[in-house]
Amino acid sequence: MYKPDKERARLLWITLQDVWASLYGSKFPTAAAINGHAPAGGCLLATSCEYRVMLPKFSIGLNEPMLGIVQPIFCMFNFVNVLPRRLAERSLNQGKIFNTEEALQIGLVDDVANSKEEALTKCAEFIGSFDKINPSARSQSKLQFRAADLQQFEKERGKDLETFVSFINSPKMQEELGVYLENLGKKAAK
Amino acid sequence: MYKPDKERARLLWITLQDVWASLYGSKFPTAAAINGHAPAGGCLLATSCEYRVMLPKFSIGLNEPMLGIVQPIFCMFNFVNVLPRRLAERSLNQGKIFNTEEALQIGLVDDVANSKEEALTKCAEFIGSFDKINPSARSQSKLQFRAADLQQFEKERGKDLETFVSFINSPKMQEELGVYLENLGKKAAK
Amino acid sequence: MYKPDKERARLLWITLQDVWASLYGSKFPTAAAINGHAPAGGCLLATSCEYRVMLPKFSIGLNEPMLGIVQPIFCMFNFVNVLPRRLAERSLNQGKIFNTEEALQIGLVDDVANSKEEALTKCAEFIGSFDKINPSARSQSKLQFRAADLQQFEKERGKDLETFVSFINSPKMQEELGVYLENLGKKAAK
Repeated sequence: MYKPDKERARLLWITLQDVWASLYGSKFPTAAAINGHAPAGGCLLATSCEYRVMLPKFSIGLNEPMLGIVQPIFCMFNFVNVLPRRLAERSLNQGKIFNTEEALQIGLVDDVANSKEEALTKCAEFIGSFDKINPSARSQSKLQFRAADLQQFEKERGKDLETFVSFINSPKMQEELGVYLENLGKKAAK
Repeated sequence: MYKPDKERARLLWITLQDVWASLYGSKFPTAAAINGHAPAGGCLLATSCEYRVMLPKFSIGLNEPMLGIVQPIFCMFNFVNVLPRRLAERSLNQGKIFNTEEALQIGLVDDVANSKEEALTKCAEFIGSFDKINPSARSQSKLQFRAADLQQFEKERGKDLETFVSFINSPKMQEELGVYLENLGKKAAK
Repeated sequence: MYKPDKERARLLWITLQDVWASLYGSKFPTAAAINGHAPAGGCLLATSCEYRVMLPKFSIGLNEPMLGIVQPIFCMFNFVNVLPRRLAERSLNQGKIFNTEEALQIGLVDDVANSKEEALTKCAEFIGSFDKINPSARSQSKLQFRAADLQQFEKERGKDLETFVSFINSPKMQEELGVYLENLGKKAAK
């Protein structure tokens, strides 16, 4: 996002939109094993799923406003679907990052596992909870639940893209991103 | 629903739709005393009400997907109105059945009573909590809260009916229902 | 509201509507320090904010139905945004008043403070939690979250005004308000 090729930045965002729509609207059961830090995109993918299990001592959240990026509308859909509304709005506005314990306590993740293997086992168990459920009835139930969000997204995805493109092309934002990256570099060098 | 007369099956579903719309949209205070197992229709009626009290050692849930039936849209409205969204979607997708304790813990029922009499007393107390409330202001408050659901239902009830009718007339579904009923019979014979 | 000048009553309601829309839709971070009883209007202002801290031994709630007043649609938006839906609807229908402890427990307020100074400090801390957040990204995130409510309000504010005006001009309601005020006077005289 820093000094990007304009067409590539546009394509990045369209791809992100497509990934979200495919994952959030997938007719298959979906589960996320989170075995690393999951800010922004990582949190978005995880909260698009129906179930989340996370390893200790990692962090998760939608921190876009920290970087000056407006929370895309699909971030809002994910958080409203997972958290109580009061927490959803506040976390989005604050760009808040939670550690594993906090995430479990507020329901941002459903369970904690002590290893990647245990996390994958728990995900498989969640997927397995649908073994005796008719797959067509299951997927229609899920898509009915998410239909309003997916419809609103389709209506607003053009506007969402232009918001991102105009952000990415703003000199002020590029300057702020530069400072942010420089600080990251200094941190890494310590 | 097994090998039904087609017109009768259609009438059954229209009647169910009407019952839901009347109960969910009733201007009167509504409370459910649950003194038996409440899968599917029983749970639907109970969650259409404003308050639920349940006797121990019974079960409740919307298990339609178990039988291959798509969760009707009004099932979704009821669960979103009663449960946190995360639990609402997952329970609908899983066709999950809860016992009394679990139902109380997640808020699917508001209280537990040890006898039918005690359950009815608690329901009467809930209804009595409106004694000093202006009935017209009360019912307008309730209907305002449920208006969006009722409007969406009216828009989609035709589609919902066709989904059910096409399900009920599918040879595959009839076969699965046959197996399900046969197994129920074997269980009962034991 | 008792025996009002008709134009003044209409203006009162329009002003209340404007205040709500400005506060609920403010692009700035908002926090409420509640250091007194907060029924009806007080609760409306507090729940329009993003954060609430309350002093002990006070009461809060939207008790409009107690006086025969229909809960305005913006009261519903505020409660749905702050409370679980099941509690939101029930509290609105009952016109329920909570004490400080109850309000904290259900999430109607976020914290309790023992003095006005402490409450203001906590509010300042909440506002301060946005210090490192880009203000434009923050306000767009908030307004995106509240957009649907604000749009529905604009569509229905005319109807909401007429509901209030017709209520205020009804002889029955004026009589009930008279009895209510007389009882308040007797209580005060004791």
